[in-house]
Amino acid sequence: MKTWNTPELKSVRFSDPFFAPRIERNRSVTVPSAMARCRETGRWDAFKRLWKPGMPNPPHMYWDSDVAKVLEGMANLLAVEHDPTLEAEADRLIDDIVSAQEPDGYLNVYFSVVHPEERWTRLYDGHELYCAGHLIESAVAYFEATGKRKLLDALCRYVDLIAKTFGRVPGQKRGYPGHPELELALIRLYRVTRNKKHLELARYFIEERGTRPAYFHTENPHVNLLNLQADRPLREMTDATGHAVRAVYLYRGAAEVAAETGDRELLSVCERLFESMTGRRMYVTGGIGSGPWGETFTHDFDLPNQYGYAESCASMGLVNFASRMLNLTGDARYAEVMERALYNGALSGLSIGGDEFFYSNPLEAGPSMYEFGHIQRRRSRWFNTSCCPTSYCRFLSGLARFFHSWADGEIRIHIPAASTADLPPGALKIESNYPWDGQVKITVLRGGYFTLGIRMPDTVEVNLDGKTVSGKSELGYWLLSREWKTGEALEYILPMPVETIRCNSKVYNNAGRIALKHGPVIYCLEECDNGVIPSRLALPSGQDFGLKRMRIGDLDGIVAITGKAECLGIPENDALYYMEKKPCGTVRFTAVPYAFWANRKEGAMSVWVREK
Amino acid sequence: MKTWNTPELKSVRFSDPFFAPRIERNRSVTVPSAMARCRETGRWDAFKRLWKPGMPNPPHMYWDSDVAKVLEGMANLLAVEHDPTLEAEADRLIDDIVSAQEPDGYLNVYFSVVHPEERWTRLYDGHELYCAGHLIESAVAYFEATGKRKLLDALCRYVDLIAKTFGRVPGQKRGYPGHPELELALIRLYRVTRNKKHLELARYFIEERGTRPAYFHTENPHVNLLNLQADRPLREMTDATGHAVRAVYLYRGAAEVAAETGDRELLSVCERLFESMTGRRMYVTGGIGSGPWGETFTHDFDLPNQYGYAESCASMGLVNFASRMLNLTGDARYAEVMERALYNGALSGLSIGGDEFFYSNPLEAGPSMYEFGHIQRRRSRWFNTSCCPTSYCRFLSGLARFFHSWADGEIRIHIPAASTADLPPGALKIESNYPWDGQVKITVLRGGYFTLGIRMPDTVEVNLDGKTVSGKSELGYWLLSREWKTGEALEYILPMPVETIRCNSKVYNNAGRIALKHGPVIYCLEECDNGVIPSRLALPSGQDFGLKRMRIGDLDGIVAITGKAECLGIPENDALYYMEKKPCGTVRFTAVPYAFWANRKEGAMSVWVREK
Repeated sequence: MKTWNTPELKSVRFSDPFFAPRIERNRSVTVPSAMARCRETGRWDAFKRLWKPGMPNPPHMYWDSDVAKVLEGMANLLAVEHDPTLEAEADRLIDDIVSAQEPDGYLNVYFSVVHPEERWTRLYDGHELYCAGHLIESAVAYFEATGKRKLLDALCRYVDLIAKTFGRVPGQKRGYPGHPELELALIRLYRVTRNKKHLELARYFIEERGTRPAYFHTENPHVNLLNLQADRPLREMTDATGHAVRAVYLYRGAAEVAAETGDRELLSVCERLFESMTGRRMYVTGGIGSGPWGETFTHDFDLPNQYGYAESCASMGLVNFASRMLNLTGDARYAEVMERALYNGALSGLSIGGDEFFYSNPLEAGPSMYEFGHIQRRRSRWFNTSCCPTSYCRFLSGLARFFHSWADGEIRIHIPAASTADLPPGALKIESNYPWDGQVKITVLRGGYFTLGIRMPDTVEVNLDGKTVSGKSELGYWLLSREWKTGEALEYILPMPVETIRCNSKVYNNAGRIALKHGPVIYCLEECDNGVIPSRLALPSGQDFGLKRMRIGDLDGIVAITGKAECLGIPENDALYYMEKKPCGTVRFTAVPYAFWANRKEGAMSVWVREK
Repeated sequence: MKTWNTPELKSVRFSDPFFAPRIERNRSVTVPSAMARCRETGRWDAFKRLWKPGMPNPPHMYWDSDVAKVLEGMANLLAVEHDPTLEAEADRLIDDIVSAQEPDGYLNVYFSVVHPEERWTRLYDGHELYCAGHLIESAVAYFEATGKRKLLDALCRYVDLIAKTFGRVPGQKRGYPGHPELELALIRLYRVTRNKKHLELARYFIEERGTRPAYFHTENPHVNLLNLQADRPLREMTDATGHAVRAVYLYRGAAEVAAETGDRELLSVCERLFESMTGRRMYVTGGIGSGPWGETFTHDFDLPNQYGYAESCASMGLVNFASRMLNLTGDARYAEVMERALYNGALSGLSIGGDEFFYSNPLEAGPSMYEFGHIQRRRSRWFNTSCCPTSYCRFLSGLARFFHSWADGEIRIHIPAASTADLPPGALKIESNYPWDGQVKITVLRGGYFTLGIRMPDTVEVNLDGKTVSGKSELGYWLLSREWKTGEALEYILPMPVETIRCNSKVYNNAGRIALKHGPVIYCLEECDNGVIPSRLALPSGQDFGLKRMRIGDLDGIVAITGKAECLGIPENDALYYMEKKPCGTVRFTAVPYAFWANRKEGAMSVWVREK
């Protein structure tokens, strides 16, 4: 089964107006502030195992994963740029982590010092194997960035213990992770170690999950198996179900296994689940997991705006899952979803300042929005369950994985953001102002014979050094195989009108509403730009929308959409109910990228706006 | 302070098309089935105190109140109609209840047999004083219906114990109910006993609540005082806050105290809280407590449709609170709210069959509505927390309290439902088809000199035996003082066009939508009448709406609203998102009374419909 490779992190450099500043802000603010929060809250030093029963602030069962994700972010930064101070910090942390390992290889602070008697007894909710997965990912990333094996070797010993503990041999436990993550981490590990045991263990977890009798019910008979994607074997699943982050991590794990084993049936299961997830259960922003209770998938077409959950981690997970599917199939529809989440719902959880976070990403905030739990209208600096902030550390520092792919004699460009990419078949430089406009120039920095594939509609005209050149069209990509010469340049213009998106009326509150899209960017109306709450506005859809450049926070050159809107009047005395229709006025509206909302004055916001 | 009296239950008989069948169904189905559910679940026999530690199915801390509310319903039925079998059942139950009383007067099964060590230690959540209140209400109702004092006397002894336990004298606890109810029950008791201690205890609970230091925090420092209306003294409150049923019971308790003490300041607090509750936080159906989490009030204008809570008990409580305010002020705006809840949100929780219940009453059910906890699209036969089913037993059997009032030399008609009312100043017969049309005839069955007040717009022409007669207009009532002769008849026609209601845009999802109203009845569109989900429909508001008679379940003669609607097309392959606007077709729509929704084929429903 052919698969494309993701670039090494150091091989891609961004200079685009959208992500490049965010990547830099992640380095300068998000990672350092997450390190600081981890220190303040006791997470960082928990690996020193100083906590004893009776002391305050016991390590929590998620803590190992929080620190591991920040460490993975640090490793990603080190992969791109030498930073001895940061590397020394990482080394000290790794010393602590490795010192926390038990003689038998076990490595989990909570189950070592807080509840050692519970080891391997609460797979369904203990996050024990989930933490193992994140530690593995950080170890792989750190090894790839620095060549240092200390953490990697420790994790390999831990994996040996896990492999001895779980499996189908008599005496082994037939368990699997309550929160998937270890599966995909084991494949990352396998790609470094080429140790077949690592692949086999990942495959075992994928295959064993959901078999009968239900393992989680041996731990606790009240476990909701559907919520944990353990109600049936993955191969029998038809819908994306249960806790959204668990789901998307599991499906990606399965896709990673399929990539390594060439299992086409497993791949087709992943395709089916991807289709359920994105074709019937995904917000227009690339948010997934709409249930206001429990961070879960619910039903087809159940996508509430204000009380929608759309967890930041779930959208980041979707980017990773879509990327893997794209690299397994070469099909642009995966790139489309990946790009949608990247530019919208996966980014909206992070403030432009880089140190405030949404856990959930609602598509609407009414003026009287009732905040509850993680459903908020203002980002927070941290959460008790801080999966989302720590996810950003590794996500933004790992963005280089998503824009290009390569295989022997092939390069693919999925998103034409301004960047340089030095890949084995050749090196390219992309110049563009994407996503703000569609004009793209690709210059060959290092030539050779390879197939260049660029995602674009097949109506786009491509010029090679000023002359029209025709390529092949395949699954949404324009392909041209030739001997590329250093210095040659391709140019093309992606059509980028302001588009009005409509939504199936089954999504109840979106009937009669439109959303605005420009390139990959989904827009929203914020009260602070419009002077009125957006629910008062209705947009004539046939109009010529305008574009204007603006600044939000310290991010300049953001392209906003402007146009005419009808504005509903206000009833006398601000009455709750009234009878007579108020005359509507005509006003100008401004819509800004959804990913940048909630960075200014607090107010109402809508992605879906009434159509006039 | 002048107050009007509510009629004795036996003095009013209904023959209207809307409530009379439901009152009868309550007698024949709802009360017997609630008795059966209470027996099946162990509630009924719990008073026998047979449960011992270690046995299954321990009595729950709400159980006393469930049984008490069913008993109050039985008492109400007995007040109207002799039924020796029912009375014998009630007597046996009362024997059990009284046998459960401790020697010191204490009467609570849960705290007697399950956790005796917790007596008076969990006022904030133990429902101990709440159960006492419901037992008192049932005792008063049974005494009023039958003249039997056994339960009443037992409860008076319990109240003596409560009065000894709580108060401001050193050695007493300065506590008050975690769930208000006892306050209003004590006033009902006082009206029977005229024992000043009963009034004083109610007043103490109202006044002590919310003082500092916070009593509930002595029990548990983590109690959310706002949710329990204990964050400040009632007299300092400006907004309806916290758990909605608790709130509306507390405010009614305060109004009952004001009625007995003539405390105008307390009355004005109640007016202010009523205004907050109904002017900025009430669904158009008379539902209150919109928070999808915690059954609470949230913010002004936060009224989500699908995930709105609007608990059945809260609307029934609102009817009672509005009725008390009406009888304290004679102001028709209280009657308007009372009527709105009565005909809509307080009734929607009960199936036409009489034995299925909504706990929460959403104004919208999308085709993919995600049911969670009590937010449902189908009624249930019972709940673990079965406050709502048992509330209906006493509510529908006690409806006679709400349609008329009287004082010395005065009769008020708040709602002209077909009925006879034999009140101290005189007896009247109302003939009408209300709420289906506005034609009303009121015949004097027993005359005398009194002021007759009828709620109606001051533009309505009134005829006395065929001749126009003019009355005084006062706070929404038409008043005529004269010597009424037996056999005389007044006739008038209430204007009853189909009205389109609009909603403040701050209620986010209602901007650009309308709701239909005919008389006091709020309508909704159900999928089963329209063949399509209502979100696809948009109603031209200026049209001439039609009326037609229909049947739902075994309820005939229901007036539906019909008219033209535009129907949005369906995208190809039922796509979630699409670009091109689909052509709209024109269809006929049918809207039915909201109170009767979810009695037929399950499907989507909307109260608020897009305006074309």
